Amino acid sequence: MTKKKSNTTIKNFSDASLPNGSKEILYIIKVGGNIIDDEKKLENFLNQFASLNSSVQGTMVKKILVHGGGRLATKLAEELGIPQQLIDGRRITDVETLKIVTMVFAGYINKHIVAKLQANHCQAMGLSGADGNIIEAHKRIHPSIDYGYAGDIDTVNAALLKKLLDEDITLVIAPITHDKKGQLLNTNADTIAQEIARSLSILYDVHLIYSFEKPGVLLDANDESTVIRSILPDYYAQLKAEKKIFAGMIPKIDNAFVALNSGVKQVTIGKAEDLQKLINHSAGTNITNG
Amino acid sequence: MTKKKSNTTIKNFSDASLPNGSKEILYIIKVGGNIIDDEKKLENFLNQFASLNSSVQGTMVKKILVHGGGRLATKLAEELGIPQQLIDGRRITDVETLKIVTMVFAGYINKHIVAKLQANHCQAMGLSGADGNIIEAHKRIHPSIDYGYAGDIDTVNAALLKKLLDEDITLVIAPITHDKKGQLLNTNADTIAQEIARSLSILYDVHLIYSFEKPGVLLDANDESTVIRSILPDYYAQLKAEKKIFAGMIPKIDNAFVALNSGVKQVTIGKAEDLQKLINHSAGTNITNG
Repeated sequence: MTKKKSNTTIKNFSDASLPNGSKEILYIIKVGGNIIDDEKKLENFLNQFASLNSSVQGTMVKKILVHGGGRLATKLAEELGIPQQLIDGRRITDVETLKIVTMVFAGYINKHIVAKLQANHCQAMGLSGADGNIIEAHKRIHPSIDYGYAGDIDTVNAALLKKLLDEDITLVIAPITHDKKGQLLNTNADTIAQEIARSLSILYDVHLIYSFEKPGVLLDANDESTVIRSILPDYYAQLKAEKKIFAGMIPKIDNAFVALNSGVKQVTIGKAEDLQKLINHSAGTNITNG
Repeated sequence: MTKKKSNTTIKNFSDASLPNGSKEILYIIKVGGNIIDDEKKLENFLNQFASLNSSVQGTMVKKILVHGGGRLATKLAEELGIPQQLIDGRRITDVETLKIVTMVFAGYINKHIVAKLQANHCQAMGLSGADGNIIEAHKRIHPSIDYGYAGDIDTVNAALLKKLLDEDITLVIAPITHDKKGQLLNTNADTIAQEIARSLSILYDVHLIYSFEKPGVLLDANDESTVIRSILPDYYAQLKAEKKIFAGMIPKIDNAFVALNSGVKQVTIGKAEDLQKLINHSAGTNITNG
């Protein structure tokens, strides 16, 4: 249902080519799952994220962090007596739930992460998709399910993202977008990471990393030692046909291939606490087109 | 108790002088009081704010909106059973209250305002003081009262604010700051407006406007027709001595004179719904040094 019209009119700003003709590296890192809810794990992850600040070939490493919401929104909704409904892992976002996710995702979690990164000498700036109109979306249209104020992404403002990255600002993106008509929308953080990666892949060598509580894509969901280290399209088709990949992983891997087919260089899935290893390819699952 | 060490090292960016040698005009507008809680009044105010987008002498008008929190934070705290305590209009910010004000101010209210402005063709971006380290503060030190996580401002990152304004971005600032050591802090929105105004007055002709539910500074708090149209230092001293100004107004006017003494051009106090008139000086109270 997602209407794609990626913002390709990028003007009035320099490209990100290095003197030797290659592009600058941009890490787009999604953090989600229970990492957000666990103060110790989150701090460990953020320390590693901040330390990616070292320069590569004399150029600052560019970074975007996209975060999910963990269980804090669900917990707050429970405390306020607002019933929550999820279909296929997607939250049904009524008016009251939209208020809650805006408060928790764009407010508490986003600013908490920014403050921790700032303490780690990382010049972080937290934004929702409404800020600077960086992500424009529309209310999801579905023939049978009313998802409420759930947003599917239309455009990413790559020009503004690049201007901010050029100032050596590290962006921290909350999974809230808007429709440019005054309506905020709750939007899947994995999809936001993917769409930002696609839209910036023309300007940077984009490495997209999905980090969460699992060490990668597992052959046996109950055995963390069964990480698949590398997935190619044929192998993925085979794994899906044999139902060897559990349902929750499929959207992540589908998103990974969409991203790779749109120019993203690398996609890695793995444990948030192994961030440095995911960057070095010594842990996690690498997904490539071959 | 506020330690002032305004960020005066402003480098690596052009100044805001116009060809004829004068500076660009920057409106810094604080909106507070019950305007935030009243959807209709807020919309009316935001429409007027967005329409200030017209150009002056071929240059886009620069704008910063600083918002308070209204009663939404208090209401949410009540719903969650978290007792709230105020001393001299300042909230005592315990850990749970800090979470609430961060969610409500930097999350719900900030993003709600940004989305409405974006719908009005105003390129708004919402930030807290932690974002881009735009406002660094310290936990308030007081000999007898423990204000909790209340922040008093140390520095404003004028260089970054200017860079964003140079991109014709309208900034929407939530009254949450940080200490650069990982701690978010609840900070008075009037003071934030004043400190931003002071720090940018070297670069712009700053017009600082405090807008709220009253039509200006009143001689008789119960009679809205008694607006004092102009206040000079001597007259203010006289009004205070005769106790003709009610207590709630005094910090606003004190702040106004601090701002004027630091280079801010004009300070106006008046009704949010009269914003256009406040800009044109056909309503509200003008405070000047003469």
